[in-house]
Amino acid sequence: MPQLSVKGNQMPASPIRKLVPYSDKAKQRGTKVYHLNIGQPDIASPVPALDAYHHLPFDVIAYTHSEGTPEYRKALSDYYKGRGYQVESDNIIVTNGGSEALLFTFGVIANSGDEIIIPEPFYANYNSFAVQSGVKIVPIKSNIESNFGLPPIESFEEKITEKTKAILICHPGNPTGYLYSKEELEKLKDLVIKHDLYLISDEVYAEYIYGNEEHISVLSFDELKDNAIIIDSESKRFSMCGARLGAIITKNQEVLQRALKFAQARLSPVVTSQYAATKAHENVGDYFEESRAEYVSRRDLLVAELNKIPGVICPNPKGAFYCMVELPVDDAEKFAIWLLDEFDLDGETVMVAPGNGFYSDPESVKNQVRIAYVLKKEDLQRSVEILRVALEKYNSI
Amino acid sequence: MPQLSVKGNQMPASPIRKLVPYSDKAKQRGTKVYHLNIGQPDIASPVPALDAYHHLPFDVIAYTHSEGTPEYRKALSDYYKGRGYQVESDNIIVTNGGSEALLFTFGVIANSGDEIIIPEPFYANYNSFAVQSGVKIVPIKSNIESNFGLPPIESFEEKITEKTKAILICHPGNPTGYLYSKEELEKLKDLVIKHDLYLISDEVYAEYIYGNEEHISVLSFDELKDNAIIIDSESKRFSMCGARLGAIITKNQEVLQRALKFAQARLSPVVTSQYAATKAHENVGDYFEESRAEYVSRRDLLVAELNKIPGVICPNPKGAFYCMVELPVDDAEKFAIWLLDEFDLDGETVMVAPGNGFYSDPESVKNQVRIAYVLKKEDLQRSVEILRVALEKYNSI
Repeated sequence: MPQLSVKGNQMPASPIRKLVPYSDKAKQRGTKVYHLNIGQPDIASPVPALDAYHHLPFDVIAYTHSEGTPEYRKALSDYYKGRGYQVESDNIIVTNGGSEALLFTFGVIANSGDEIIIPEPFYANYNSFAVQSGVKIVPIKSNIESNFGLPPIESFEEKITEKTKAILICHPGNPTGYLYSKEELEKLKDLVIKHDLYLISDEVYAEYIYGNEEHISVLSFDELKDNAIIIDSESKRFSMCGARLGAIITKNQEVLQRALKFAQARLSPVVTSQYAATKAHENVGDYFEESRAEYVSRRDLLVAELNKIPGVICPNPKGAFYCMVELPVDDAEKFAIWLLDEFDLDGETVMVAPGNGFYSDPESVKNQVRIAYVLKKEDLQRSVEILRVALEKYNSI
Repeated sequence: MPQLSVKGNQMPASPIRKLVPYSDKAKQRGTKVYHLNIGQPDIASPVPALDAYHHLPFDVIAYTHSEGTPEYRKALSDYYKGRGYQVESDNIIVTNGGSEALLFTFGVIANSGDEIIIPEPFYANYNSFAVQSGVKIVPIKSNIESNFGLPPIESFEEKITEKTKAILICHPGNPTGYLYSKEELEKLKDLVIKHDLYLISDEVYAEYIYGNEEHISVLSFDELKDNAIIIDSESKRFSMCGARLGAIITKNQEVLQRALKFAQARLSPVVTSQYAATKAHENVGDYFEESRAEYVSRRDLLVAELNKIPGVICPNPKGAFYCMVELPVDDAEKFAIWLLDEFDLDGETVMVAPGNGFYSDPESVKNQVRIAYVLKKEDLQRSVEILRVALEKYNSI
């Protein structure tokens, strides 16, 4: 067989997906699996989006402009203006999900061997896009004890080299649910300006903030006009993960022009997804308020119940729909496999994402798992019960 | 502003899209533009696909498996079996268009600096995916005089180095419409086996072959089990370019496992597109026969009419829906811009894709354009008339 690349070898297995073969086997045995591993909400997509599919006004599923349809870019621009940010259509390049927005951004700003600093734990697929782009991720550890808040800004400064091109934050954070404060963002702002770096802010969960605190986009800092690049997506906002619709948003016209070349190479984003999301934005109604109310009640239930289990530590996330949870086990990945492979409680078990996959060194933190609260409350309640019994049994073997 | 990567700079502007600003301006002036530049068919997508969108059986637009839904992979497997090829579901990884299939394939097989040999002129975006992947394309020129047939196999052998990872063919060819014969494919087969290379065969136009000749997929050579990688797409097959639905098809399980990692990084292909294309495959009826009949009559009209213009040379393509046409001008790109920027015939003009963008060295062949026959016959007839008058005027300035 002809040789394969080292890249494919370096691409880490996704912690969200890597245990799928085990869950498939569990299902084949007749075990019901509660999926806490993946951020796939069970909340219905907006009715206007579904209606849009049901009444497509065209009979050729055709290419659109590579940068997206004028209608969708306008709808997204209006959405941002509604949140108080002056985003114009021409600040937007539409992508196949936030994933492609990340891939394009890495390709536009970084040469092979360049470095991007990311507080960890971080969204595991950042690793994959970095490998694909030849970029080196430089992690800075945040701690469960401080709810995964921004590490001291000096620890960033120490890591900056001539290869450093950007700092990447996920805001609010996947997998941590952490919401950066204005003060933290200002520190990052000063740092990237001082060192002439990009600040990539993955804000795909910006709509899902709970409690009184406010999401502050890095778009709010005029001084970051040339530095700030927003990763956007409809996946979580409208529970349209399978539409694969995202965007790069920036005021930096040169970044946009370069990103457009990447967009032109793959010709077009998905026409039906753009059409449906346009309709969802134009007729948004109470969708966000209703979804938020559901998520906050799920979060409150999950966090309260998890912290009742002896040895479990679950910080209270302020946004997104994940918790990074410490379990009383030595190796959470082994435990997660055991949950699928050997355990069930009355024919049911849970699937969680091993936390080590969210760290650049999977050996560095081994007792955490990511739990997504994307299931309805009775399923979450049952899932925690399964986890409680499983931990008890696992630790008595 | 922080520095940008060299990649974004190296990414060539798409010859299919680069003149869009000129056509936008022409339209703003009220000029009607016939789009011969892009392979966007005007043929309706299959009714069962459209019906599928109209009756989606889910209300969450959710992620699917990263490798695609079992239903769609089964439908695609059945489609290939119907063509006589033993493709199983697990030989398939579903992608966001043929574009992503190419990007994944390059990433899986090639390290930065590795080489892929491609007969030119070739589909321009191969260049872009190569830049994105750090791959060097090694072109071998085919000639309009021999209808862009396979260059002598010795010319391939001369270019093979220790960096060579694959030979990539487009079969039938975009932009040439050339269909490789069994003899030509056998020469390629022997060569890639001798040198242990991959043979990447972009067969997205395989359904559109005209005349008595048959499309022979590289899947038909058992000896290529480990070497052959097919790039597939529904874009042209079902006139569903905007669905962004493609696939990698190979018997090489290691390639598939590596490609799966790339697929997992971006989580999922588009759920609605997979659902619609599944329905189209399951109820295909006479769709291909009808579409083929339409394309062949368009081709016959276009080729006959173009060759009537003094100085124009248009080989008769055996498949796909493009002609690579030689024009009696020194610089076809300048002429293409002039068509949009300065010319009209009674308020109408045509947009063609400059041919130099389909060569790795855009300076090497400057008097060709790619013309897509994706418009109905009366529009093609009118387009050729516009071209004829335009050439006359241009050459008399």
